[in-house]
Amino acid sequence: MRRTLAELAERCQAVLRGDPAWQVDHVSGMDTAGPDSLVFVANESYLDQLSACRAGVVVLSQQYEDRFTGNVLISSNPRLTYTRAAILLHPNDVAAPGCHPTAIVDPGATVHPTASIGAHVVVERGAVVGANSYIGPASYIGRDVSLGADCLLHPRVTVEHRCVIGDRCILHPGVVVGSDGFGYAKDGQHWEKTPQLGRVIVGDDVEIGANTTIDRGALGDTTLGRGVKLDNLIQIAHNVEIGEDTAIAACVGIAGSTRIGKRCTIAGQVGIVGHIEITDDVHVTGATVVSHTIRQPGTYSSGTPLETYQRWLKNAVRMRQLDDMARRLRALEKKITERSRGGTSEES
Amino acid sequence: MRRTLAELAERCQAVLRGDPAWQVDHVSGMDTAGPDSLVFVANESYLDQLSACRAGVVVLSQQYEDRFTGNVLISSNPRLTYTRAAILLHPNDVAAPGCHPTAIVDPGATVHPTASIGAHVVVERGAVVGANSYIGPASYIGRDVSLGADCLLHPRVTVEHRCVIGDRCILHPGVVVGSDGFGYAKDGQHWEKTPQLGRVIVGDDVEIGANTTIDRGALGDTTLGRGVKLDNLIQIAHNVEIGEDTAIAACVGIAGSTRIGKRCTIAGQVGIVGHIEITDDVHVTGATVVSHTIRQPGTYSSGTPLETYQRWLKNAVRMRQLDDMARRLRALEKKITERSRGGTSEES
Amino acid sequence: MRRTLAELAERCQAVLRGDPAWQVDHVSGMDTAGPDSLVFVANESYLDQLSACRAGVVVLSQQYEDRFTGNVLISSNPRLTYTRAAILLHPNDVAAPGCHPTAIVDPGATVHPTASIGAHVVVERGAVVGANSYIGPASYIGRDVSLGADCLLHPRVTVEHRCVIGDRCILHPGVVVGSDGFGYAKDGQHWEKTPQLGRVIVGDDVEIGANTTIDRGALGDTTLGRGVKLDNLIQIAHNVEIGEDTAIAACVGIAGSTRIGKRCTIAGQVGIVGHIEITDDVHVTGATVVSHTIRQPGTYSSGTPLETYQRWLKNAVRMRQLDDMARRLRALEKKITERSRGGTSEES
Repeated sequence: MRRTLAELAERCQAVLRGDPAWQVDHVSGMDTAGPDSLVFVANESYLDQLSACRAGVVVLSQQYEDRFTGNVLISSNPRLTYTRAAILLHPNDVAAPGCHPTAIVDPGATVHPTASIGAHVVVERGAVVGANSYIGPASYIGRDVSLGADCLLHPRVTVEHRCVIGDRCILHPGVVVGSDGFGYAKDGQHWEKTPQLGRVIVGDDVEIGANTTIDRGALGDTTLGRGVKLDNLIQIAHNVEIGEDTAIAACVGIAGSTRIGKRCTIAGQVGIVGHIEITDDVHVTGATVVSHTIRQPGTYSSGTPLETYQRWLKNAVRMRQLDDMARRLRALEKKITERSRGGTSEES
Repeated sequence: MRRTLAELAERCQAVLRGDPAWQVDHVSGMDTAGPDSLVFVANESYLDQLSACRAGVVVLSQQYEDRFTGNVLISSNPRLTYTRAAILLHPNDVAAPGCHPTAIVDPGATVHPTASIGAHVVVERGAVVGANSYIGPASYIGRDVSLGADCLLHPRVTVEHRCVIGDRCILHPGVVVGSDGFGYAKDGQHWEKTPQLGRVIVGDDVEIGANTTIDRGALGDTTLGRGVKLDNLIQIAHNVEIGEDTAIAACVGIAGSTRIGKRCTIAGQVGIVGHIEITDDVHVTGATVVSHTIRQPGTYSSGTPLETYQRWLKNAVRMRQLDDMARRLRALEKKITERSRGGTSEES
Repeated sequence: MRRTLAELAERCQAVLRGDPAWQVDHVSGMDTAGPDSLVFVANESYLDQLSACRAGVVVLSQQYEDRFTGNVLISSNPRLTYTRAAILLHPNDVAAPGCHPTAIVDPGATVHPTASIGAHVVVERGAVVGANSYIGPASYIGRDVSLGADCLLHPRVTVEHRCVIGDRCILHPGVVVGSDGFGYAKDGQHWEKTPQLGRVIVGDDVEIGANTTIDRGALGDTTLGRGVKLDNLIQIAHNVEIGEDTAIAACVGIAGSTRIGKRCTIAGQVGIVGHIEITDDVHVTGATVVSHTIRQPGTYSSGTPLETYQRWLKNAVRMRQLDDMARRLRALEKKITERSRGGTSEES
């Protein structure tokens, strides 16, 4: 959608240096940009390429504004200014309100007249779908689910019975909210399934990535706070609680009853054991295993560094000898110290 | 569902201390419990809160029965007693038998008259669906699949052609049973796909978590024994065999042709390489990599401990020097020993 | 399908030793083989069992051809010969062309008359489906998607708007192509979603495993080269590029903007951080974390070896002391060296 630079500056927290009446209609990369393009320089190492860039406007911090001779949107947070401009220039398609004729909406469900229900969707009895929400084809909304306003459910999303989704949530294809937690009692050698009676409560402005799974609570609820962002293929077990504005990258697994604070960032493939607490403002680097409670904000890690296979083989075998090595080192230290003392006594 | 304590005691392997005619109708947590509630104390550290608990009945081991003054169900396995009581108090909804009008059931499929087929389900030719089984909306049952009795397939489950599912199995949303194994022949630099001609055979009483994938055998079958429990987002490759009553937590990957014994427990994010054997009664802790056959029952681990990022950086760089450190330690030991001998000879 | 050994030899790059008119109609394992069976010996350790094998023909390398007295297909690449024979003997079912009456195909979509669209499929406006392609039940083809010829989409596949899939691609159940990348700008403590405006471009002859997710580019495209093979439950983040003929096993996660070369093999559960480059012909062993750019072809690893839990506990605690141990070892070496010098000077 075509916008003047004046409008973009006003609505995207930026100051315009250039022609306020100039219009752009899309964002683009530096190399493909033309006079209709808005460009953002994600990485300082690309700043040199700006001299050859033909963009209609470039978003820059004040520090670098002189690197481009054309129109510049000067921002103290260029990434945010770019994001807001991209939203304005590329608005989502708005689906027509109403239910596709192939959707099966139970007469006991309540769908807001402005909501849009796609083809082959099933909405069960007692479910509520809020204003302007879109439910993509082949999705399933279980009994007594509450789905807020302005939500965007992509195709093939499953929300099981009684779960609650806030406003402005985005659920990507294959998401499962409200599957049973992994809970059993041992009966001799067999596992007897413990009914999973809780719910999943998802706050406002939450995004959940493709094929991510969130189990319902065993008795209480599994909860995602307002503004939580989950990437793809994440597993959230029963009774986990995740605080507001925490962002979790792909392939992370979080075991049952663990509580994660606010504003945490959890990188990809991290594993977090059950029944622990992670305080606010904790950052965990990729593939780390979080095995115990974290009480201090900060950055945490585990794991071993990348090596060639040949070197790794040699070092890995030593990891099995580490305790032995530590003891032998201690023994050597003692021997040397004793001998030093002995030497001294001989000399005296 | 409302039940007397007498009935619960009889059916849940417990002895009642209290009023046999008292009735409860749900399970609950300690803090929200009222006279209609049954409560289970999962963790001994909560026992102190029992004095303030208003539950109609509490499940306790004999050891702790005096911690609650009201009705008590005394059990040698309180978790099992709780699980059985929860099942009785919270029975699953029973779906009406028959096929939803939008389901596409091939005339050559055999659906038991007591089975229930949800909206937009597809059941292909030659498939058999057993008595009282429920197939959730938008699920797919491939050609010649055999699905047992009393199964519960949640929405959006896929069972590909010729796979066999036992009785009383539960498959959660997004499960894929019978996808092709990852098998190729090298043709120069290209990969040529090897047909995956086997099946997946799932025993009775198996539960499979949301978005878990189980590949069909290349030639023979991939098999899950009776009572196997799989959590969410697990990958089972072709020709894997898993023994009875083994339970596997979320995000585990098991490579091709590996055999896992009975009664094993595999914690979350474990990786197991292909073509190995794990004997019965093996327990693997979270995020461990199982790189070779395990012949002895017991508990196995790998991985490094959690640290602050700053400390981890310092230690991780040393992991690349481990073999070097080990050699230097050995050299020092030799030097010291030689010098000791030397010293002795000088003294003699 | 029944074939003569003459035909199999000719079409599967093998030389027949035996009866060219003999016919077989399926592949099988050694133990269940009969006169209609073709057998391939995957592992040299099974060669001894050939003496008891009743197969109609066995595929062997020249080196081992004397191990079977019956018909032999002699091949310099027995696995490839087997694969080609299996394809000929077990051709895929061919679905009838046309759209199932329950499929919702937008009038603005272009479906080749030889393509087959399954039950409850949705094909949006502007999408193109190529010749002989099959789209399984409940799949979703978004707006302006381009799907090539001879593709096989299993049930419940999602391809989001504007993505491009080449010819002869195979997508397994639950695959998501074109979900939004995980991109946000920080607005104070909140995350503001950055529109994900790129596409996913999938080359010819690509296979994508069950429940694997591939995010669309943020601005440019995410690309999979010709012949790439992806196993199940893999996450490919936005703007990743994967070179031709690279094969990636299950449960791998690849973070944003990383470029992987041609002919690489990435084993299961590997994690690859974002914004790095991996050159051609790199092999990464299972569960390795690739934390930096790899410029040299070869094999790479990280991780710690499997141990019993008791031994692991002892060694793992030492990993946190590694830097300290390294410093103490250095200090000891210095002391010994100094003393040697001291001793020498005393002796002189």
